[in-house]
Amino acid sequence: MRKILIIGAGKSSSYLIQYLISKTISEKLEITIGDLHPENVLQLVKGYEDKVNCIHLDIFNDDSRGQAIKDADIVISMLPARFHITVAKDCLKFEKHMVTASYVGKEMQELHEDARSKNLVFMNEIGVDPGIDHMSAMQVIDRIKGAGGKMLLFESFTGGLVAPESDDNLWHYKFTWNPRNVVLAGQGGAAKFVQENQFKYIPYHRLFRRTEFLDIEGYGRFEAYANRDSLKYQHAYGLDNVKTLYRGTMRRVGFSKAWHVFVQLGMTDDSYTIEDSANMTYRDFVNSFLPYSPTDSVELKFRHSLKIDQDDIVWDKFLELDLFSSEKRVELQKATPAQILQKILMDSWTLDPTDKDMIVMYHKFGYELDGQKHQIDATMVVEGEDQTYTAMAKTVGLPVAMATIAILNGSINTPGVQIPISKEIYTPILHELESYGIAFKEKEVTYLGYNPLNL
Amino acid sequence: MRKILIIGAGKSSSYLIQYLISKTISEKLEITIGDLHPENVLQLVKGYEDKVNCIHLDIFNDDSRGQAIKDADIVISMLPARFHITVAKDCLKFEKHMVTASYVGKEMQELHEDARSKNLVFMNEIGVDPGIDHMSAMQVIDRIKGAGGKMLLFESFTGGLVAPESDDNLWHYKFTWNPRNVVLAGQGGAAKFVQENQFKYIPYHRLFRRTEFLDIEGYGRFEAYANRDSLKYQHAYGLDNVKTLYRGTMRRVGFSKAWHVFVQLGMTDDSYTIEDSANMTYRDFVNSFLPYSPTDSVELKFRHSLKIDQDDIVWDKFLELDLFSSEKRVELQKATPAQILQKILMDSWTLDPTDKDMIVMYHKFGYELDGQKHQIDATMVVEGEDQTYTAMAKTVGLPVAMATIAILNGSINTPGVQIPISKEIYTPILHELESYGIAFKEKEVTYLGYNPLNL
Repeated sequence: MRKILIIGAGKSSSYLIQYLISKTISEKLEITIGDLHPENVLQLVKGYEDKVNCIHLDIFNDDSRGQAIKDADIVISMLPARFHITVAKDCLKFEKHMVTASYVGKEMQELHEDARSKNLVFMNEIGVDPGIDHMSAMQVIDRIKGAGGKMLLFESFTGGLVAPESDDNLWHYKFTWNPRNVVLAGQGGAAKFVQENQFKYIPYHRLFRRTEFLDIEGYGRFEAYANRDSLKYQHAYGLDNVKTLYRGTMRRVGFSKAWHVFVQLGMTDDSYTIEDSANMTYRDFVNSFLPYSPTDSVELKFRHSLKIDQDDIVWDKFLELDLFSSEKRVELQKATPAQILQKILMDSWTLDPTDKDMIVMYHKFGYELDGQKHQIDATMVVEGEDQTYTAMAKTVGLPVAMATIAILNGSINTPGVQIPISKEIYTPILHELESYGIAFKEKEVTYLGYNPLNL
Repeated sequence: MRKILIIGAGKSSSYLIQYLISKTISEKLEITIGDLHPENVLQLVKGYEDKVNCIHLDIFNDDSRGQAIKDADIVISMLPARFHITVAKDCLKFEKHMVTASYVGKEMQELHEDARSKNLVFMNEIGVDPGIDHMSAMQVIDRIKGAGGKMLLFESFTGGLVAPESDDNLWHYKFTWNPRNVVLAGQGGAAKFVQENQFKYIPYHRLFRRTEFLDIEGYGRFEAYANRDSLKYQHAYGLDNVKTLYRGTMRRVGFSKAWHVFVQLGMTDDSYTIEDSANMTYRDFVNSFLPYSPTDSVELKFRHSLKIDQDDIVWDKFLELDLFSSEKRVELQKATPAQILQKILMDSWTLDPTDKDMIVMYHKFGYELDGQKHQIDATMVVEGEDQTYTAMAKTVGLPVAMATIAILNGSINTPGVQIPISKEIYTPILHELESYGIAFKEKEVTYLGYNPLNL
């Protein structure tokens, strides 16, 4: 029997656990789930209680954490990213493999040599974004290069959205993931990317006004705004000489233009607290970003300040949020603007019990082959089944689970701190994901780049 | 003889030195000027070389710094603000008084008890802003309160500008002070102030679109944008219950609207470096903040992106700066946007040898007396004589010099880390400043506040 320890069984572990349970016999797995609240895990393992050992695990308790890790062959950390390093250090100590769906931080990267020398695989960034984006992109890039093509352009976009059947508000958006991350998205410095060999920079306060459109057959039009650092994987992907490199986040069309208003007003700022926030109404909150007037309404000041016409659909989006309510109170002590905005949005954007989510991904690959320019567009759409078996949980959990078994089986065996960009990792996983409905549709399109006439 | 040590004889020390020289006999002064480049100081003491001892002083050399401070009775630090603390620690060690024109930082404030216990006066913020603003505001506030008035409103604005006779560009602005501080002005968090008991917040990227107008007789109209923390001196000024408190920076009308374009584009960002900045033309720099196009001109993309009509005077301001030059190169290695913008502006906004500067200050005092509301507006304008004897050097240096002598004479004697807000400090200094042409004009105006009809 091979022993798998899953630490932290939150929102995105439903499919992970289900998949591993389904493999207990064929793969000879013994599954332990360690969580601060093991009682919450029981729902996820219903009907399979005999196949899973749920234990109480407080990762701040060195003894119980160490013991659990020591007892395992491989550890999956589904904890918030900042806690992975604690788990990783125990994995080094007790010589266990490890899998996470999170970005490789500086501290994790520093464990590379130690993990390598102990022949341990520390696989990270193997969820959806990061994860499926890496694997699906590298599969096409390697194929193009293998055929003798030269990469010219790579653009990649992902969005965690609400499924069309549950898309019933003017923003075409609900929180399907951490709301705080959505409110703070794009902050921390200018976005940087390359278009036709020109470096481009967008400050945060303009980010949501520089979108581009993307169409997915059967799903209509989306828009995307730039991620902060599009160049992060340029070298890892082998795209050092590419002319265009752009990564972004997808929303339904119109979201960004309205979100830009929050950014303009300063409502997404998380760096200071608002005076007397607890007793404010939503209306007071809005008014605190507008000039004082003894007579003019908050609504008119808002529209004037942001130059929003009365018949602009953007205006209806704010009304829908009840942003000008003089009844609803913030009720948060010493809250930042971002925390207050999050609360206001959660009133409207929290999923109903029957709502379903959706993950969309869009890659563009421009390349030259035999003197001709070509482009492949690859798209993926995954819809959730319900609020436990979400598209997010599916696309994060399944690659994590598959990589875990591949490591146990030795088919993923390059030691050290890894991300899934090599053929031996992505080929079997992408292939298996297809049988779970996680698949890309590719189509050849005319290569336009950003300079179609070669001017 | 009383020994004064001036450390750092830069741009703003001309009047300071001249004033102290004029008092050597009457006040029995022995003046030593310590500078890293004493040869540069000679011009400032021309004709009075016998009255001043110029020495080489490297403040990073503990021995020579310590010896110079030990030999003095009082030390004036005209160094950049971050170096004051080094001097202050020596002043504590050797038990010497100290004077600076800079804001009291956290480290300086921490010396308060030590300085107090040794009966030393560490006078700070006694230049123009901070300095003359404190003194002139407190004089009126104390007078209003002394007469039984209750303060309702205090607004205070200062600007370092070019004198009308040298005002020959479309921005009505030249660098009369540290250009870097001008480029970075307003950054570091949202501006906060109070209007009619309502707290108001303006994010940096909107700061230059929320100006108010100020008229000064004989000098026409100015505009002001909010300082970051208008509430900083609320308690120190005794204005805890005031309804409106607002501090700002003055420019000529139209400056802020055009500056807002730089902010929007992201050109004032100092947090990252631009790729290959050294080889860029000014045009390339501008283009890096605009979408890629193989055909559209940088000019049209700029105008479209910022919604600037061709016949808008704002547009001419950018042309005047030669912002779209494909000849001029940035020539700065690994430069931030802010550093590059500073260089471009310095091409146009550096004072000519014959140019004169100007300091303007505007206070509004709203108060209630015997059931009636009143307002006093107080304005000050000081013009420079030439590029050595600037208005900036005059308004910074004279209060510093006067405070130094007052400390030596014991008329300023409250020990500890101080700022000039008490009567015994501001009364004689403001009185003496008048004889140097640094004076406020007061006028009674109708109190409007922000709520004239009491709605």
